[in-house]
Amino acid sequence: MAITYELIKTCKQTGARLGKVHTPHGSFDTPMFMPVGTLATVKTMSPEELIQMDAQIILSNTYHLWLRPGEDIVKEAGGLHRFMNWDRPILTDSGGFQVFSLSKIRDITEEGVHFRHHLSGEKLFFSPEKAMQVQNDLGPDIMMVLDECPPYPATYDYMEQSINRTTRWAERCLQAHKRKEDQALFGIIQGGEYEDLRKQSAKDLISLDFPGYAIGGLSVGEPKEIMNEMLEVTTPLMPSNKPRYLMGVGSPDSLIDGAIRGIDMFDCVLPTRIARNGTCMTSSGRLVVRNAKYARDFSPIDQNCECYTCQNYTRAYIRHLINTNEILGFRLTTYHNLYFLLKLMKQVRTAISEDRLGDFKEVFFEQYGFNEHKPKNF
Amino acid sequence: MAITYELIKTCKQTGARLGKVHTPHGSFDTPMFMPVGTLATVKTMSPEELIQMDAQIILSNTYHLWLRPGEDIVKEAGGLHRFMNWDRPILTDSGGFQVFSLSKIRDITEEGVHFRHHLSGEKLFFSPEKAMQVQNDLGPDIMMVLDECPPYPATYDYMEQSINRTTRWAERCLQAHKRKEDQALFGIIQGGEYEDLRKQSAKDLISLDFPGYAIGGLSVGEPKEIMNEMLEVTTPLMPSNKPRYLMGVGSPDSLIDGAIRGIDMFDCVLPTRIARNGTCMTSSGRLVVRNAKYARDFSPIDQNCECYTCQNYTRAYIRHLINTNEILGFRLTTYHNLYFLLKLMKQVRTAISEDRLGDFKEVFFEQYGFNEHKPKNF
Ligand SMILES: [Zn+2]
Ligand SMILES: [Zn+2]
Repeated sequence: MAITYELIKTCKQTGARLGKVHTPHGSFDTPMFMPVGTLATVKTMSPEELIQMDAQIILSNTYHLWLRPGEDIVKEAGGLHRFMNWDRPILTDSGGFQVFSLSKIRDITEEGVHFRHHLSGEKLFFSPEKAMQVQNDLGPDIMMVLDECPPYPATYDYMEQSINRTTRWAERCLQAHKRKEDQALFGIIQGGEYEDLRKQSAKDLISLDFPGYAIGGLSVGEPKEIMNEMLEVTTPLMPSNKPRYLMGVGSPDSLIDGAIRGIDMFDCVLPTRIARNGTCMTSSGRLVVRNAKYARDFSPIDQNCECYTCQNYTRAYIRHLINTNEILGFRLTTYHNLYFLLKLMKQVRTAISEDRLGDFKEVFFEQYGFNEHKPKNF
Repeated sequence: MAITYELIKTCKQTGARLGKVHTPHGSFDTPMFMPVGTLATVKTMSPEELIQMDAQIILSNTYHLWLRPGEDIVKEAGGLHRFMNWDRPILTDSGGFQVFSLSKIRDITEEGVHFRHHLSGEKLFFSPEKAMQVQNDLGPDIMMVLDECPPYPATYDYMEQSINRTTRWAERCLQAHKRKEDQALFGIIQGGEYEDLRKQSAKDLISLDFPGYAIGGLSVGEPKEIMNEMLEVTTPLMPSNKPRYLMGVGSPDSLIDGAIRGIDMFDCVLPTRIARNGTCMTSSGRLVVRNAKYARDFSPIDQNCECYTCQNYTRAYIRHLINTNEILGFRLTTYHNLYFLLKLMKQVRTAISEDRLGDFKEVFFEQYGFNEHKPKNF
């Protein structure tokens, strides 16, 4: 088995899981947030900086690497870890999300997806077998099956057909996967906001006995309550001896709510994307450092943060850098935001180990502003 | 005196000077290359990275900081060193070069220059007194007089009037400078490619007894031979107990040729600017890492380089990053290029101390390709 999940403890207050995932490139603690390194780099960061902030696993994107530089080059370099100089665990997505979201012109058949290159317009074809070949060549520790990512909202009929195809594709992925000894393939549970379809998708995929399971198709525009309901329907069905990954979720409230519902792994571009736009997550809520009111503010982004950025730079300086498009500005806000979420996950793990994740959530939500009448999204 | 120059040794083979400049923020070795940090940041780099590569002094731009964020904010932050978290020496230019090069609409009078903001088009006025006030507020260790930067080529008559105005402006700068105890003001010798005007400008400025002198108006498009001739005319007139700064020069050949002609300090955006375009300086000449031929090249940028980039990353990976506009790519090439020039200056200093800078030049020029029939510019 390429990876194993070790359940250390369950929070008595919430049921959240404290654990560890062991991979060919070392272990990571769960619940864990995975910074996204789309093109074999977490935007603006060096590997050393990621290690310094204790990122234990990162995610990279199959679709993007397939197109640039091409998985053959990454394979020739000795795999993704060596190519990008990162020897901790890596997870790659299947490429499905990009195929379905970036390309407008596409044609889904049982065989796979015909679509056009999101930049060049070139005709391309992607299939479960292709997703496996590319990921086997890239060589991450954890890889994902190719799933259909249905639009939101989708009709019940569409969704039913879609989850059945996703299950058939998952079987083909299992068949095509050539490196089971050192790469773990996760199944992806879909089903939109339909409780019974979620259950059916979970049941079907679990019967295929993957070493881990993801929940996809959430955080795609639906109300937060629905995401939580779908998690409550799904996670109790998932095997307790395997990791559970909620895809594409990275807002602080959702990380906590997900952990409370038994999720172990999360990823999202949110912290890095908003950072490059000058928006920071802080212990007292969102801070848009571009704003004019910070022009003469010589305090750090977050008084309660121990990160490199907050220890060395002021809001006034970072605002100046962001407003003049200086790369150091993007580096500093990115570093802070990732540090903030990784620290949050550490606080969540500590709270689980002390059976007080519910209390932690109360305090955190209050301080961040999630309890306000119209809370911001993050 | 804010700064002092210590002459350690003169190269018996070439006459190049080995020295040290002592400033309120510590000392730096000469000959020295100063990385350019236009907007209070050396593009893509952190202060720690600059220290790691042993950058001993950096340059920042008065014009740009005057406009954004405004010198009042920098002053309120405690000065440029604190604002940007850099406590080694800083030199600022006067703003003259940008006023003359970035703004198309301008009107030069005896009083100063009327021009328009290079981005917003707003009407602005800059004068010797303004240049001093801004630099006194920014608080660098070394500041520059406001000089006229004449176009190249300029007629003899124009140049003669120009150097006389530059001298009168230099006197006004001396008058207006309010922090002589902790900020050293350098005069700037102009004169284009006219030997007698260079000599006159040098004589006039030296009589004003500045703590250091720069040579401006070279490397503006004239043949390399003319630059060397002008240096040979000028540096012998300059006081040996004060630092000599050749402005805007950063190609490896010119750094060596300048040192041989008695120059102590250099600055240029070249290494950082070409880096962001994927061009690297290496021990065997220029390397354009964007090129397709490096797509599967898993060797470092420069086999003979000990820098962070070359120790950890391949040409194939850096090419991928640059081609996909990933910031880490710009960081890696910038780091390498600056390291390369700082190491070159260290090699130059060692060669001076061993009386063999002429021999060093021979070998370096041969390896870099400067002796080829049509050598590249850098
Ligand atoms: Zn911070
Ligand atoms: Zn290097």
